[in-house]
Amino acid sequence: MPNAQKYEPRAPIERYVPVDHTRVSFDGGFWKSWTETVRDVTIPTQHMRLEEEGFLEVLDFDKPPSPLVRPIQPSGLSMQHFFDSDFGKWIEAASYTLKNHPNPNIEAKIDAIVGKLEHGQMADGYLNSWFIRREPEKRWTNLRDLHEMYSMGHLLEGAVAYFQATGKRRFLDVMIRAVDHIIDTFGRESGKLRGYDAHEEIELALVKLYRVTKDPRHLKLATYFIDERGRMPSYYDDEARRRGDDPAEYIFGTYAYSQAHMPVREQTLVVGHAVRAMYLLSATADLAFENDDESLRTACSRLFDNLVGRQLYVTGGLGPSASNEGFTREYDLPNETAYAETCAAVALGFFSHRMAQIELDGKFTDKLETVLYNGALSGISRDGEHYFYENVLESHGQNRRWKWHYCPCCPTNIARMITSLGQYFYSTKPDELAVHLYGENTAELDLGGAFVRLRQRTEYPWNGDVGIEFGMERSKRFTLRLRIPGWCRSANASVNGETVELEINKGYAAIDRDWRDGETVRLALDMPVDRIYAHPAATEDAGRVALRRGPVIFCVEETDLGMEPQRLRLPARSAISASYDAALLGGATVLEGDALQADVSDWRDTLYRTEPAALKPRRFKAIPYHLWANRAPGAMAVWLHEK
Amino acid sequence: MPNAQKYEPRAPIERYVPVDHTRVSFDGGFWKSWTETVRDVTIPTQHMRLEEEGFLEVLDFDKPPSPLVRPIQPSGLSMQHFFDSDFGKWIEAASYTLKNHPNPNIEAKIDAIVGKLEHGQMADGYLNSWFIRREPEKRWTNLRDLHEMYSMGHLLEGAVAYFQATGKRRFLDVMIRAVDHIIDTFGRESGKLRGYDAHEEIELALVKLYRVTKDPRHLKLATYFIDERGRMPSYYDDEARRRGDDPAEYIFGTYAYSQAHMPVREQTLVVGHAVRAMYLLSATADLAFENDDESLRTACSRLFDNLVGRQLYVTGGLGPSASNEGFTREYDLPNETAYAETCAAVALGFFSHRMAQIELDGKFTDKLETVLYNGALSGISRDGEHYFYENVLESHGQNRRWKWHYCPCCPTNIARMITSLGQYFYSTKPDELAVHLYGENTAELDLGGAFVRLRQRTEYPWNGDVGIEFGMERSKRFTLRLRIPGWCRSANASVNGETVELEINKGYAAIDRDWRDGETVRLALDMPVDRIYAHPAATEDAGRVALRRGPVIFCVEETDLGMEPQRLRLPARSAISASYDAALLGGATVLEGDALQADVSDWRDTLYRTEPAALKPRRFKAIPYHLWANRAPGAMAVWLHEK
Repeated sequence: MPNAQKYEPRAPIERYVPVDHTRVSFDGGFWKSWTETVRDVTIPTQHMRLEEEGFLEVLDFDKPPSPLVRPIQPSGLSMQHFFDSDFGKWIEAASYTLKNHPNPNIEAKIDAIVGKLEHGQMADGYLNSWFIRREPEKRWTNLRDLHEMYSMGHLLEGAVAYFQATGKRRFLDVMIRAVDHIIDTFGRESGKLRGYDAHEEIELALVKLYRVTKDPRHLKLATYFIDERGRMPSYYDDEARRRGDDPAEYIFGTYAYSQAHMPVREQTLVVGHAVRAMYLLSATADLAFENDDESLRTACSRLFDNLVGRQLYVTGGLGPSASNEGFTREYDLPNETAYAETCAAVALGFFSHRMAQIELDGKFTDKLETVLYNGALSGISRDGEHYFYENVLESHGQNRRWKWHYCPCCPTNIARMITSLGQYFYSTKPDELAVHLYGENTAELDLGGAFVRLRQRTEYPWNGDVGIEFGMERSKRFTLRLRIPGWCRSANASVNGETVELEINKGYAAIDRDWRDGETVRLALDMPVDRIYAHPAATEDAGRVALRRGPVIFCVEETDLGMEPQRLRLPARSAISASYDAALLGGATVLEGDALQADVSDWRDTLYRTEPAALKPRRFKAIPYHLWANRAPGAMAVWLHEK
Repeated sequence: MPNAQKYEPRAPIERYVPVDHTRVSFDGGFWKSWTETVRDVTIPTQHMRLEEEGFLEVLDFDKPPSPLVRPIQPSGLSMQHFFDSDFGKWIEAASYTLKNHPNPNIEAKIDAIVGKLEHGQMADGYLNSWFIRREPEKRWTNLRDLHEMYSMGHLLEGAVAYFQATGKRRFLDVMIRAVDHIIDTFGRESGKLRGYDAHEEIELALVKLYRVTKDPRHLKLATYFIDERGRMPSYYDDEARRRGDDPAEYIFGTYAYSQAHMPVREQTLVVGHAVRAMYLLSATADLAFENDDESLRTACSRLFDNLVGRQLYVTGGLGPSASNEGFTREYDLPNETAYAETCAAVALGFFSHRMAQIELDGKFTDKLETVLYNGALSGISRDGEHYFYENVLESHGQNRRWKWHYCPCCPTNIARMITSLGQYFYSTKPDELAVHLYGENTAELDLGGAFVRLRQRTEYPWNGDVGIEFGMERSKRFTLRLRIPGWCRSANASVNGETVELEINKGYAAIDRDWRDGETVRLALDMPVDRIYAHPAATEDAGRVALRRGPVIFCVEETDLGMEPQRLRLPARSAISASYDAALLGGATVLEGDALQADVSDWRDTLYRTEPAALKPRRFKAIPYHLWANRAPGAMAVWLHEK
């Protein structure tokens, strides 16, 4: 039985509320250039790609549909079925920038899309551009494969974000009508279909909608979808038979592909398509929060532990296999063939972040931090307009970032994470302030009606020293909860220069006092270079070591080494030092140290022999994994052979 | 530039002639049970599968064709296009058993197939059951994808073998008419198509036919195909345009897939589909022999060296990638995803064997021996009726031998190799006898008209001691050339009990004397357990060691170890001993020794940590690689992590 660990009911569900991302300004440090690049380069170029590649043509409802040219999926379906999701996610990502950085040009582009959506929406509220234009009679006949609610969910997230950014209701109203139509169509009431989309997404979007509308029907619909999912006999079997198809002919074989093989409350193993699994768990955590549902929180916690304890790459990547874009068996973490889709790492960030609001535990925010600095950020190039879909941990040089993809779900996903980055840094209760992440920024917080301006001054993640300064209109007693990262083995703190004893509870140190304007906290997180070893069952990493410093995982690239890094041998005790290289891709900490290299001079054309290669000393350099494949193409390795 | 090694013209091409396989009897030792199993189990069950799976239905020319149910290839083509090749190869494999073990039942089955082929053959000689029944108007319109000559080639090999076994000409005559039709259709003469099949096979079949018919047109046709292949502009471009297709739409992208990107004489790198490459090189070696063509021999030798020096698995498997069923880049030898098709290893045996006839060099027979005891033999189960198509060198237990395959090229290929095994053991010239392989058998040889009965008495490959006894009607002076395997670092020999000094030239020791009836040779090949290391550029094997004893590569299976062998660590100097286990799958030598195992007791649900796992001592057992997956399913590894 996987995960025999017991999950006892806990104290009532906590209710931290994340700060609105618009109240956090990355005015220096690590995230400044990333957030600026995504806002100024990524968002505009993504719209350009959507246009160039014909994604927006699906909205020309008055023109005859263009021939199908997109690649066809293994299931025989065209990606065009879910183009709506791509511009929906783009609208969301773009919207997050608009409040602090108004951009009439972007706003006009969004309004144009919204206008077409409104024009195309069917009289009963149905909204999916593919079916409306091509096969309206087939709508809602195949929830298993056709992603209609997935696509609507992304439009809905976009609509909520756009409304929150601009106050314009038009898109939101279009989507509320679409949701009304879904409510009319699906549910337990007689005459309705008891279906749910095989690609989760609408559920978490409905919770976002509910938080805006406070309409209980919106929360109820999300709850229905989560509760209904995985009941047997399966809706997808019935649905297939209604289409005249044999349910046994399902290309993915098992509904575990969509986490629909059993109710989520009963699941003990994270399975199937990785993005779907993370969207499901994000929505499940949302409903645990909104419905105060301990059984859902327990399921989330159990599945989070299974993921992190047995199925997660050291980079925060997840879902090793391309064939199901997802999970295989526990401890199966191949490096060169890692699928580890950018979307999945981003969505693990969503899930971890939601968990931290209902159970303040550093184990959640540790993984949020891991994906932010590693397996999600690796999905976008330093120039902000090239992408990885798959985030391998090892390459022989065949992997290249691409300008666009036939299934461009990842670019807009990493974009929306970065344009809304501030929300992940802080959460509040009326008399608590939790600092989840470190990195230079200024935040404006509301603690039970009291205004607190918080300034973080730090070179984090390159340096573990963090200064926090409070600006307040009047003093207020509250508990400051500082995350002490799981990677950190020694942390010290002072308040106004006086050392304070840190008592760490589930990864957070609490300082409860009356805080006044101008007071400062200094946190010193010891940040040595760590050698990381994988559990012996993760055999792809056997005999290998990864390098980590702070939250950052490093890798060795051929362009620095002059040969494939797979040929390097790292002695178990060689010295490795860290230094900041201002010239590397906008500045980054690099590691340098002593290693060994197999000598090939006496091998000639022998492929196998009875003597191992002689090893000779050499230096090596490692760079942050998220920066790989931004320079000359070549081989790369995260896990180095240890000698 | 790959393979900068120079290929100087050599002395005139040698002309060893392999012994007829029917003159070699495996009357004991290693190969006795294998040859009996293949004859008594494999051959009959393969016919049963061909019937059960509907392969033979394609020959019911008077019935309407059945619907296409076979899986469709990536190219959109049905496997049924080349079903002829499967029963052609089965006829060949079965025929090899008939002379020494007449079997009227099998012969009747073959005659039934031949009768249908004759009935269906078109008036002009064209013969491919798919096109005749379904699309006769499309014949010869797509040599790039449709395998017509490949299929005819296998029928032709079957016809030659059946004629040689039974003296019956009917099948041979059918195929000669088919070849006449090809001669009428293809060639440089005006009015003919300058085409050649993208899947090589017909070329080597034509040389076999020529050796029976002595008709120079048959050799000329084979020569034309080899000479024409790879000329630019490509025939396949023209052909695609004639079909109205865009040549750029070729699914495999490059004609290197079919070794048709440049003439074989200019090729320096073994590329593309591995079976095709080996069939091409087998035919090229045949033509070097028949046409005394030094330029072809040079090309073969250069490509052999490239393959063996940079692209061959330690098991003799080749072609690492499933996507092109073939080669990728030099030193790319992934273990778990190794494609290493059984057919390719078998065909490397064909190629190596042919090379040894034109240039007696142990480097060729070493690889013949490697595939026989490892990467080809692994393709068939010990019970003779289950198969591997892909011969991985590492598994987490997902690999199972199958009863049949939708593309069953491999079962009949390994079958025909084993039913004609004797031919690989000896070659002769009028006054020379080359012993290529060791293994208990009795052979009847003709040396320039003199009869020699040779008995090998040996436990090889489990033991390096080989006794050879000559039975002769009268004494004869000839040079006995004994192969001293490349794996052997110390060999001793005696003649009639008197030690002889061995002078080894290109892997063979010559003993030139007047041999008399009853004389004996004893050869003692030192056979320790060897640790094998791969070239540092073969990074998948970095930090790993393989175990070899004599010609046999070993592996560790989960069923013996009680855990995944990937978790084993083999200290660089631990003792490993060999012993014979009579109870293991009919008897085999196993290795046993001291190793280490990572302790997981203190890991709990931690996936990564900063301390490596503690290692604790344990014993391990390794079995011959070719015997893996014959017992309880589980993980397997050839390359073990060295500590």
